[in-house]
Amino acid sequence: MPADLIAALDIGGTKIAGALVDGSGELPVRARRATPAREDGATVLGAVTAVLRELAGSPLWTRVAAVGIGSAGPVDASAGTVSPVNIPGWRGFSLVAAVRETTGELPVTLVGDGVAMTAAEHWRGAARGRTGALCMVVSTGVGGGLVLGGELYPGPTGNAGHIGHISVELEGDPCPCGGRGCVERIASGPNIARRALENGWRPGPDGDVSAAAVAAAARAGDPVARASYERAARALAAGIAATAALAEIEVAVIGGGVAGAGEVLFAPLRRMLGDYATLSFVRGLTVVPARTGTDAGLLGAAAAAARGTRLSGFGTGS
Amino acid sequence: MPADLIAALDIGGTKIAGALVDGSGELPVRARRATPAREDGATVLGAVTAVLRELAGSPLWTRVAAVGIGSAGPVDASAGTVSPVNIPGWRGFSLVAAVRETTGELPVTLVGDGVAMTAAEHWRGAARGRTGALCMVVSTGVGGGLVLGGELYPGPTGNAGHIGHISVELEGDPCPCGGRGCVERIASGPNIARRALENGWRPGPDGDVSAAAVAAAARAGDPVARASYERAARALAAGIAATAALAEIEVAVIGGGVAGAGEVLFAPLRRMLGDYATLSFVRGLTVVPARTGTDAGLLGAAAAAARGTRLSGFGTGS
Repeated sequence: MPADLIAALDIGGTKIAGALVDGSGELPVRARRATPAREDGATVLGAVTAVLRELAGSPLWTRVAAVGIGSAGPVDASAGTVSPVNIPGWRGFSLVAAVRETTGELPVTLVGDGVAMTAAEHWRGAARGRTGALCMVVSTGVGGGLVLGGELYPGPTGNAGHIGHISVELEGDPCPCGGRGCVERIASGPNIARRALENGWRPGPDGDVSAAAVAAAARAGDPVARASYERAARALAAGIAATAALAEIEVAVIGGGVAGAGEVLFAPLRRMLGDYATLSFVRGLTVVPARTGTDAGLLGAAAAAARGTRLSGFGTGS
Repeated sequence: MPADLIAALDIGGTKIAGALVDGSGELPVRARRATPAREDGATVLGAVTAVLRELAGSPLWTRVAAVGIGSAGPVDASAGTVSPVNIPGWRGFSLVAAVRETTGELPVTLVGDGVAMTAAEHWRGAARGRTGALCMVVSTGVGGGLVLGGELYPGPTGNAGHIGHISVELEGDPCPCGGRGCVERIASGPNIARRALENGWRPGPDGDVSAAAVAAAARAGDPVARASYERAARALAAGIAATAALAEIEVAVIGGGVAGAGEVLFAPLRRMLGDYATLSFVRGLTVVPARTGTDAGLLGAAAAAARGTRLSGFGTGS
């Protein structure tokens, strides 16, 4: 029996998704539970274990060579623990050890969800074949990950590329992380919506006050809605340019719900990048939408887990 | 005859230094010329060639295995060219090819001066044995370099770690680089002095308006002088915290003339780091002074050149 599959978990504040992933990026077996995010840690783990057991019930399970976990952060890959902001029952929770209770001797790799999404985009998305890339999820929060020297760079604790919490305004608004002027505090979906409302934008009859509704208003020409996206674009531009100056990336890949705003976000972002990415070696930097979609977390967790193995197919350039 | 030495060049706007460097960090042969920075490119190259010829006149030259160049930036290691801001006669200047005219078949490695200083601190200074480090020079400008995964990370063009030109103020003052609110625009020596003068600080009878004079005034209790250093410290803290969030560094090493201010800079910097480095995986970050001193550029150019060779001694942990 070939050991050619990876069991992948994508753990977020809303759902826990699992799949068996093969080297061509197919997901022949899937499982999924809602995250009981308000419950105690053991209950949340119960949902993870249920997903794993469902996967293990497949006849394909005997072909699994490794387990990859992408989790909402912060994570600590070196300790095997997670403390997801949106899952209060898990603080320094020993997720890797708990998963091993179900998966036995299989090697287990843990990375943050931003790093997982990056692994997915590098393997099968917009960062494929790139030497240096920043991949980002701009959604309820802002996360990211890095490709350096043609390889995923998770960092010692699996959190590298954490662009959401770099400060682009020294004296900016306090961020829930404890910092000030963080990219996420300006560019996340909820902050785009909040700023539009504060500046006088009003939702339509459906009462939808999401960032997507603000994007629709911006598309229709509403100047306040447009300004709120432009401010988000400015923060993203400064953060992406900073990453390029520090890490020499050639492309920034942006996914997540806010990226769904399309040119409402990308047009000012590309323009404003020129205000911050001025050094000769970063001027060629491009910004493109992500391509891997809702399976990014699973594909990326699998790609990250495959790094330590000899499995063929997984990873960049395949 | 063992091939156990590296010929190192440290090219700045003021001087061109050269040395033969051995694996224990000794510099048995040295040469030096003033940089004719206002002259045409050929004249500047003449000074480089004079330094190289002086080194090549040593009987030890036969033991040289490789050539390492650390140059004021921007550089382009992939193209072998340099465009130092302070040497206008060199724009896209093919320095590597020009050096080869003198050094023949020896392999030549080019890195930016921030990367060279980082290689030196990783080999023999405050970043020795570290897995992740940002090393910085805070002086007339602000430069830097990165150690990632226990190794020097120069980036594809030799410019990685360019912390001086990341923006920490979206709407900050315009920077000569074309950006806004750059770390260098706030934290460099000339900007520390300018800000103190603008806010009412006056020099002593000697008329010294340098950042060192501002540091002396701060040490004597002058509140304006102290505030100017605190503002520099805040920009550095945000930049260092951003680097840690993006690249997972564990230590920031600071050298250069402004670091000579000692606790006038380091005390507020350590305090303010707590305002920006808030994520669990960056909270252990420390800030320490550099140790390699004025030979950092030469030691680092040698260490960077040794990376591609099998020479013993050079590099971290030796």
